[in-house]
Amino acid sequence: MQPQLESTHAIQTVSEQTSERWFEYPVRAQPHHTDYAGVVWHGSYIAWMEEARIECLRSLGVDYVDMVAMGCELPVIDLSIRYHRPVRLGMPVIIKTRISSMKGVRIQWDYRIQSPDDQSLFVTAQVTLVAIDREKGKIMRQLPAVVKDALAKLSSTSSS
Amino acid sequence: MQPQLESTHAIQTVSEQTSERWFEYPVRAQPHHTDYAGVVWHGSYIAWMEEARIECLRSLGVDYVDMVAMGCELPVIDLSIRYHRPVRLGMPVIIKTRISSMKGVRIQWDYRIQSPDDQSLFVTAQVTLVAIDREKGKIMRQLPAVVKDALAKLSSTSSS
Amino acid sequence: MQPQLESTHAIQTVSEQTSERWFEYPVRAQPHHTDYAGVVWHGSYIAWMEEARIECLRSLGVDYVDMVAMGCELPVIDLSIRYHRPVRLGMPVIIKTRISSMKGVRIQWDYRIQSPDDQSLFVTAQVTLVAIDREKGKIMRQLPAVVKDALAKLSSTSSS
Amino acid sequence: MQPQLESTHAIQTVSEQTSERWFEYPVRAQPHHTDYAGVVWHGSYIAWMEEARIECLRSLGVDYVDMVAMGCELPVIDLSIRYHRPVRLGMPVIIKTRISSMKGVRIQWDYRIQSPDDQSLFVTAQVTLVAIDREKGKIMRQLPAVVKDALAKLSSTSSS
Repeated sequence: MQPQLESTHAIQTVSEQTSERWFEYPVRAQPHHTDYAGVVWHGSYIAWMEEARIECLRSLGVDYVDMVAMGCELPVIDLSIRYHRPVRLGMPVIIKTRISSMKGVRIQWDYRIQSPDDQSLFVTAQVTLVAIDREKGKIMRQLPAVVKDALAKLSSTSSS
Repeated sequence: MQPQLESTHAIQTVSEQTSERWFEYPVRAQPHHTDYAGVVWHGSYIAWMEEARIECLRSLGVDYVDMVAMGCELPVIDLSIRYHRPVRLGMPVIIKTRISSMKGVRIQWDYRIQSPDDQSLFVTAQVTLVAIDREKGKIMRQLPAVVKDALAKLSSTSSS
Repeated sequence: MQPQLESTHAIQTVSEQTSERWFEYPVRAQPHHTDYAGVVWHGSYIAWMEEARIECLRSLGVDYVDMVAMGCELPVIDLSIRYHRPVRLGMPVIIKTRISSMKGVRIQWDYRIQSPDDQSLFVTAQVTLVAIDREKGKIMRQLPAVVKDALAKLSSTSSS
Repeated sequence: MQPQLESTHAIQTVSEQTSERWFEYPVRAQPHHTDYAGVVWHGSYIAWMEEARIECLRSLGVDYVDMVAMGCELPVIDLSIRYHRPVRLGMPVIIKTRISSMKGVRIQWDYRIQSPDDQSLFVTAQVTLVAIDREKGKIMRQLPAVVKDALAKLSSTSSS
C-alpha cells in the first residue's frame, strides 16, 4: 500500500485550505451500541464516525455509492481514537467531523464526539482515507473529479 | 421463562385496541451495515428494528432508559423475519413499526421495511417483548404504569 | 423472489434424508456481544448462527468463498428465533446446527444454542437459505454440484 | 479521566519487563465481518482485538468476568490502528497480542494481525486500557491482586 504521490498541483492547493467548520451528525446511544458496562462499546464509535463521514461527503455533493460505481473506494488506512468519557445508554450525542488535511489522494478527518450542549467531550479521533481504484486494487494517482470539485467548493466556502 | 399471566383486566382492554398506524423511522444503509454481497447483512436489520421500537416508545412518552432505571426491561423473547428483497449500500429506507397485540406483559410488534415511496417492500418481521423485573430476573405481573399510560394514550388516539 | 422449483429428482431424494446429527460450533460471549443488561444482545446470536452454518458447510467440504467465486450465494430469506434464557458475559456456549430440510434450492437449518454440558438451552432457531445466481440476481434452478455432492455425502453418512 | 499514578513499586518493576512473546488468537473472516467491498470492515478488527485480549488474560489465569464481579473493569482509553492490507472473506488470520508496557493502572497492548504463515501483515495496532473501580466510576490506584499476580507470572516466564 505505498501511495503514489503524483497528485496534481491543483489538489495540493485545495488541501492547504480545507474546512474549518465542523459537519455535525446526531446519533443516540441505543441498546445495540452498548456493552455489559451500560455504556457504548468502544467499537461502536467507529460505525458512527463512518456514518458522519459519508453524510458529510453527501452534504458536499459526493454520493459515496456513485463513487463506488465509478470504480473508486475510500478505505480507512489509519485510525486513532481517544476515549475521554463514556456515552451512556439513551444519550444523544453529536458526531462532529471535518477534513483536516489532504495530501494527494489521502484525506484526513478529525472527529469530536460531544453532548448536544457542547459541555461534554466523549471522544476525539483522527481517520485517514486513501482513494483506491477498485479494479486495479491500487491507490489512485489523483482523486476522482467529483471529489475534487466538491472539495474545491468546500475550500472556497471556508475561505469566504 | 414461563410468563405469569395475571395481568390486570384494564391492560387487556387496552391491548385489544392497539395501534393501527405505523411509526416510521428512517435509516440509510451505510457501509458498516453491508456484507461482501454489497447488500445489507441480514443481522443489521435487527439493530434497525430495535432503534425503531425504542424511538416509537419515545414518541409515546416512554423513555427506555427511565424504564431501565425503574427496574424494568423489555427483552426480545421471539423474533421472526422474512427477507423479501435486499437493501443495497446507500439506499434510504423506512422502518415501519406498530404494536400488533398485547397480552399481559407481552408486547408484539409488527415491522415493514420499505422504500420511502412505498413501492418496494424489503423486510417483514414480528418481534415479541416481555417485561422483566431487573432485580428479581423474573417476568413482571403487569407492565409499569408509565408504559400502561402511554399505551392507553395510543389506544385512545387510534380509535379516534 | 419466487423460487423456481425445477430442482432435479436426485436432489429431492437427498433432501428427504438430511442429517440427524448436529454440527457443534463453540463460542464464548465476549464484551462486544453483550448489551447494557449484561447479557448477549439479541442480534449477536445471528452472527454466531452464520458462523456455525459456514463452518458446518466447510466440515462437509463446501468452502463458502469458493461457492461465491463460482457465482452462487446462499442468502437468508427467512429466520425465526426464540430466546429461552440469556447468555451472560463470559459464558461458553455451543451453537448446534443441522440441515432440517431441503426443497429444491431452499435449505433449512435448525439451531439449538446450549451450555457445553447440555443442561441449559438458551436459544432455538430456524433459518432458510436459498441459492442465488450472483450475476443474474435470480434464484438458481438447482444447487451447485459441489453442494449437491456434499449433501449426498451427508445423507449417506447419516443413514449408515 | 486523569489517572492517579500512585501504583506500588512492585508493579512498576513488573511493568518494565512485560512479555516478549505474542499470544496468538486465530479467527476466520466470516460474512458478517465484511462490507460491500468484499473485505473485512475496518471496525470488525476492534472486536477481534478485544477477544484476543480477553483470551490472553484468561491464558494468564485472569477471568475477565471475575474481575468485573470484583468491581474492576478495564475499558479502552486509547486505540490506534493501521490497516496495511485488507483481510478478505473466508481468510483465516492470527491476532497476535502482547502487553507492551504497564504504567500504574494503564496497560498497553500491541497487536499484529497476520496470515497463519506469517507472510502477510494485515493490521498493526496499539490499545491502552485503564483499571476502573466500577462502583466509584474512578480510575483505581493500583491493579487488582489477581491481575498483579498474573503479570508477575508473565514477567518471570518471559525473563526465563
